[in-house]
Parts: sequence; C-alpha cells; structure tokens
Amino acid sequence: MSIITPRGFLAAGIACGIKDGKKDLAIISTDSPTVTCAGVFTSNLAAAAPVQISKKHLLSGNSNPRAVIINSGNANAATGKQGYQTAEAICERVAKELGCSVEEVLICSTGIIGTPLPKDKVIDAVPKLVNSMGPTPQHGLDAANAILTTDTFVKQAVIDKGSYSVAAMAKGAAMLAPNMATMLAFITTDAKVSTPDLFSALKYGVNRSFNSLSVDGCTSTNDTVLAFASGQSSTEPTVEELSEVFEQLCQDLAIQMMNDAEGATKVLEVKVFGAIDDTQAFKAAQKVANSLLVKCSLYGQDPYWGRVVSELGSAGIDFNIDLVSISYGSSQVCKSGQKASFDPEIVKEYMSNKIITITINLNLGQGVARFLGCDLGPGYIEENQGTS
Amino acid sequence: MSIITPRGFLAAGIACGIKDGKKDLAIISTDSPTVTCAGVFTSNLAAAAPVQISKKHLLSGNSNPRAVIINSGNANAATGKQGYQTAEAICERVAKELGCSVEEVLICSTGIIGTPLPKDKVIDAVPKLVNSMGPTPQHGLDAANAILTTDTFVKQAVIDKGSYSVAAMAKGAAMLAPNMATMLAFITTDAKVSTPDLFSALKYGVNRSFNSLSVDGCTSTNDTVLAFASGQSSTEPTVEELSEVFEQLCQDLAIQMMNDAEGATKVLEVKVFGAIDDTQAFKAAQKVANSLLVKCSLYGQDPYWGRVVSELGSAGIDFNIDLVSISYGSSQVCKSGQKASFDPEIVKEYMSNKIITITINLNLGQGVARFLGCDLGPGYIEENQGTS
Repeated sequence: MSIITPRGFLAAGIACGIKDGKKDLAIISTDSPTVTCAGVFTSNLAAAAPVQISKKHLLSGNSNPRAVIINSGNANAATGKQGYQTAEAICERVAKELGCSVEEVLICSTGIIGTPLPKDKVIDAVPKLVNSMGPTPQHGLDAANAILTTDTFVKQAVIDKGSYSVAAMAKGAAMLAPNMATMLAFITTDAKVSTPDLFSALKYGVNRSFNSLSVDGCTSTNDTVLAFASGQSSTEPTVEELSEVFEQLCQDLAIQMMNDAEGATKVLEVKVFGAIDDTQAFKAAQKVANSLLVKCSLYGQDPYWGRVVSELGSAGIDFNIDLVSISYGSSQVCKSGQKASFDPEIVKEYMSNKIITITINLNLGQGVARFLGCDLGPGYIEENQGTS
Repeated sequence: MSIITPRGFLAAGIACGIKDGKKDLAIISTDSPTVTCAGVFTSNLAAAAPVQISKKHLLSGNSNPRAVIINSGNANAATGKQGYQTAEAICERVAKELGCSVEEVLICSTGIIGTPLPKDKVIDAVPKLVNSMGPTPQHGLDAANAILTTDTFVKQAVIDKGSYSVAAMAKGAAMLAPNMATMLAFITTDAKVSTPDLFSALKYGVNRSFNSLSVDGCTSTNDTVLAFASGQSSTEPTVEELSEVFEQLCQDLAIQMMNDAEGATKVLEVKVFGAIDDTQAFKAAQKVANSLLVKCSLYGQDPYWGRVVSELGSAGIDFNIDLVSISYGSSQVCKSGQKASFDPEIVKEYMSNKIITITINLNLGQGVARFLGCDLGPGYIEENQGTS
C-alpha cells in the first residue's frame, strides 16, 4: 500500500546529498497517455520557485504531466532568479531522462528558506533517480521517505474502491516543521477523471482537511498538493464520489500530520455549531485552535474556558456571549456565557487524553465547522528556536 | 511622581480580600467641577461587565466622572447578568460614599474570566477605600500597586509640561497575563481639555502605543484606557500638543509592559517601510511580531530571516519578494528577496541583545509602521499552562 498502488505509476526515492546521505530526492511518474493532473498551492506571495514553476507547467495547456520530482532539505524559497533557473533546469533534466517536454514535469521542494538549492547535486542524481523507479510498495515507501524533513514517521494512505484505488503520501503540516518548512501531499488514482473534476475533488478534499488544520497559524512558502489520475482503470467515478474519497484520504493524512506535529503532545479538535454561516463557524474554530492561550492551557491540561470565550469574542464574527455554550469532551463547562455546573474531576481526567475536543455552540444560526490544532509546549520552542 | 501628580486628583489602593491580603482595590477620584473624561475599550465582543458599565456611564451625557474604581484578581467577565448587577452595585456604593450620581462612577476589573466577582468583599471595602484616598505619591503608588496582577513591577509615568502635567499608571499588556487577563491604563492631567479633544488625544496616544504591541495576539475581554482632565491648571493645550504628550506617555508605559511581559526574555521592535500605505505597513509589522516562528527564533537568538519573508508573503498585503530587504539591527540579511552578504558573527552578537529591531523595506510605496512584540520561550508556557 503506497503511492504506486493505483495502476500506471512508478516511484523512487534516493539520497542525492542535500541531507548528508539521507534520502532527499523522490519522483512519482506515469507513462499513461490518459493522465490528468490538478494542483493546489500555497497562497503565500513569497511562493518558492518550484511552486511558481509547477503552476506554470500545469497551466501551460500542452501538459498531461508525466512526473513530479520532489526534494527535501532545501525549500528553494527566497532564492531569486537563480533559484528559479535551478528549478527549471532540474525539470529539464528529468524531461530529458523521461523523453518528454519540460512542461510535463512538475517540481516540489521542502526545507530551509533563503539558502540556494545545490543544483548540481540534484541534477547529477536525476539519471539514478529515474533508473531507480519501480512499481513495488518498497519503491513507494522510498519516495514517501525521501520527502520527509523533521517528520518522525512516513505518512501514507490508500483507499481501495474495488474497480479503482486512490493513494497518497505526505509530509509535515503547514509550517509544522518550519526549519524545514512546508506541507506537501501527493495523490494518485487509476480512475478516469477529467482535469476539471480532478481539480474539484482535490479542492473539496484539501479544504476539509489540510486547510482546516494548523500547528502554528503560519502559511509556508512551498505548500503544494498534487493529484494525478492515470485513467488505467475503466472506472469513471462521479465528481461527488471522488470528492468524498479525496476528503477521507486527506483527513487520514491530516490526522497523521497532527500526531506528528513537532513538540506537540495533544491534538485539538474544535467543533463550532450555531454560527451565522459556515464561514463564520470556520473563522471561530480557527481562532480558537490558533490561540496561544488555548494551546498553552491544553498543554497544561487546564480546561480554562474563559480563554475560549475571549477568543470567540475577538474572532470577528457575530457573537452574543449570553447564548454561548462550550463543552470539553462531554462536559459542558459554559452555558449561556457563564460557568456551567460540571464535575471538575471528570473534566480533569478528560484533559489528560491525547485528543481533546472542544465543542462550541454559538446558538445564532446553522453554521458549522471543524478545525484541527495542537497544544503548545516546550517541545515546539525547542524545535523552533534555531535553524541549526 | 504618580497618578495624583496633576492637581485635582486623589487616589488610594487597599486590600479587600480578592487576592488574599494583597492590594486588589484602587480608586482615582476628583472633585474638580470642570473634569472631563474619555475612554477607549476592548473591541472584544465578550466585553466584561465593567467595560459595558463604564461605557454606558461615560456616554450617559450627564456625567463628568468623579471616580473610577478598579479591582484586580477577578475580571468579572463571562459572569452573565449577575456580574453586571455586581459591577453596577459597586458603582452605586462608591457614588453613595462620594455623594455623586452612579453615572459619575466608572469601574474596571482585571483577573480571571468566568468566576463571579466576590461582590460583598468589594462593596464592604468601599468606605475604607474612599477614606484612604489622598494626594501624596504614596497614595498614587498604592493605587498603581493594587491594579497589578502578575506584573512584577509597578508601571507609572509622568510628564511635566511646566504649567500643567500628565501622569499615568498601567498594568499588563494585551493578554500578556492571561490568567489574570487584560491591560488597563489610567491617565490624569490638570490641563483644561474639552471632552472631544481629550478623546482625540487619547485615541492618538493609544493607537501609537498599546494598539501597536502584542505579547500573544490575543485581545482581552477587559482592556480599558481612561483619561481624566481636571482643568485645575489654567493651561489649555492644543489637541495636537496633548496628542503628542499622550503618545509619549503611553509609549513609555508600553515599553514598561513589554519589559515585564510574562516569560519573555526579549523585546522585538518591527519597523516596516515602503508599504503601499500605512495600513498595510501596520498589518505587515503586526504579522511578523505575532508570528510564533519569528518569536521562537528570537528566543533562540537565530536571525532566520526566511521566516520573516514567509510571514510577509502571507500577511495579506501587496508584496513583491524581489524588492524586499530585511535587516537585523544594522546588518542587512536579505536584499532583493535573497540572502545578502553579511557578517554572521556581528548578527549573532546582535541577537543576544535584550531589544531586537527587525527593519523591513517592502520598496513599494511610502507606508510605514512600527510594532512591538516579544519572544516566545518556555517561560510563557510555564506561566500560561494553567490557572492555578
């Protein structure tokens, strides 16, 4: 079970020398003539060179992408024209090796920002990378390994739908591993999917997973999620079905990411009900999940709901404190904006769990949202106080 | 030098039992018939009862406020109707003691959210509080002490303009001391100032100080800044002059707050130049100062400017990475969006300073802004992981 489980894909992961002998270069490739591809990219205006190039190639019109090459250890971000030229040269080398056009090659990088990517190391390793490609689970695992930065485990997921399958691999979450930057994810399927449907399903899945979680509220320069459909199976799922499958797959990866969040000891799930609309519910859930004070109290296992109320009041949403209720797990701690009667021992025990759910009802409308976060403990600071 | 330095004011600070024998109840009072008053309050929609009541009294029209009573240790926030009635009852008791109307009494609270304020303790202490009032520096110091929560030192400032003076006292910064919530500040002057001019000068000063700093990006339920002008001197400064004096005074207090930020080891000053306009410059400076990643790297004394670029790119402002330059102190570390040539030893030494200035030039326009922040170290988590 790996990224090459769906028919029509090959993968490889090798060490090219960016990360001192550790696997740091991966490829996913297809020779299917019916392949389609869709991508979503970081909204950061300091988007890295590989993001700019992948977007350009994907939108060039002549492309049914043949491959994506991914390096870890260096983000090739804030590296100017030279960085852009380096990324383009790598794509050219891969295209030459695969016998396709440069526009048919996409590129992703993840790692430190502001340091030039060692161009020669990557380009010299391309023939070996392409020669290493294969269709076995080990090939998929090698690729999944080579894209990791400070992740402590490989993140993969596969859904078998019988007549077709969908697989994915990922690393990091948002700026989870900021020294090494970026969240990357790759999805493959052998279903037959048009490019517009693939894009719709991808956006649907990403919005309900990666875009609804945060480790520290930062948006990286390199975030990229790419989906490839080889069309090697005869099945043509509806866009609705595929969207649900992508959502399920991406949520699986999202939970894996949060469980691997640097320095974090707990996963926080914030559920908001009763907002004026879903947009306001999302804003509220995100505000609470990103609050330093809420994150710290989570680390300290302290159900201090006053902080949640305060965040809701400053979330920029419609809000009436007299209507708000808040629960930690199944214990309602705040009712009508005031302290509810609850058993502190039960709440205290609940706070020792690894996954904490805070449920908020604003009692104003039908808007709902869910957002994943994590706690803030000394481990995060330990990981992020320096680059070396 | 204290809050009673300007003529026409009395102050007191005593212990009423909220904080186990520590000073926790203060009053500033004036019997000047020409007094004017202006206030700015938290934008948090979960604004505490005292905030609601002070706003109501201040806007009631019939009021030239005679006094403000302040308690620490309990925010009287998220306490429902009962909390509102408690705050109103305290104002009534003060009014009775001073022989004025209830609308002439303002009230501020700071402390834990969601726990009822012990009404009787406060009300029973009002006669003693009023009897303790006096015009000496010790009276001012007592008041400045009684409003503190987890602050480690008293925050006061006085500016002597010869024919009139302006004084202030404050506690906390934003949600700096979130267990005890809130930033409060009080300004007195014996200048003759109309209410509209006083409000203008107050907004001017606050926007350029307290509204341009953040410890953790959280907006408390109780933030309040009040200014009183007794009119006891014959001097009538222009609104421009008074605005400048208020700015100077508030900045003095703001720096005192940042130096006392819980768990922080460094003050961060972010200066942005070359934004499209001042609003965008402010957004950019605020985004960088509030970034967990920047704050962690500051704690770790690591000049990782890639994080600054990434925050700028996701600040929601006009941005062209190829034009950006960034300096740490006097060392330019990023030029035209790429690594500049600088002496790492000089930068490393600079990062060991207590106050770090990051200067950004977006090179797009004439917008400028300045924002104060602090680092994020284990001390913040230590202070904020629990309420007990």
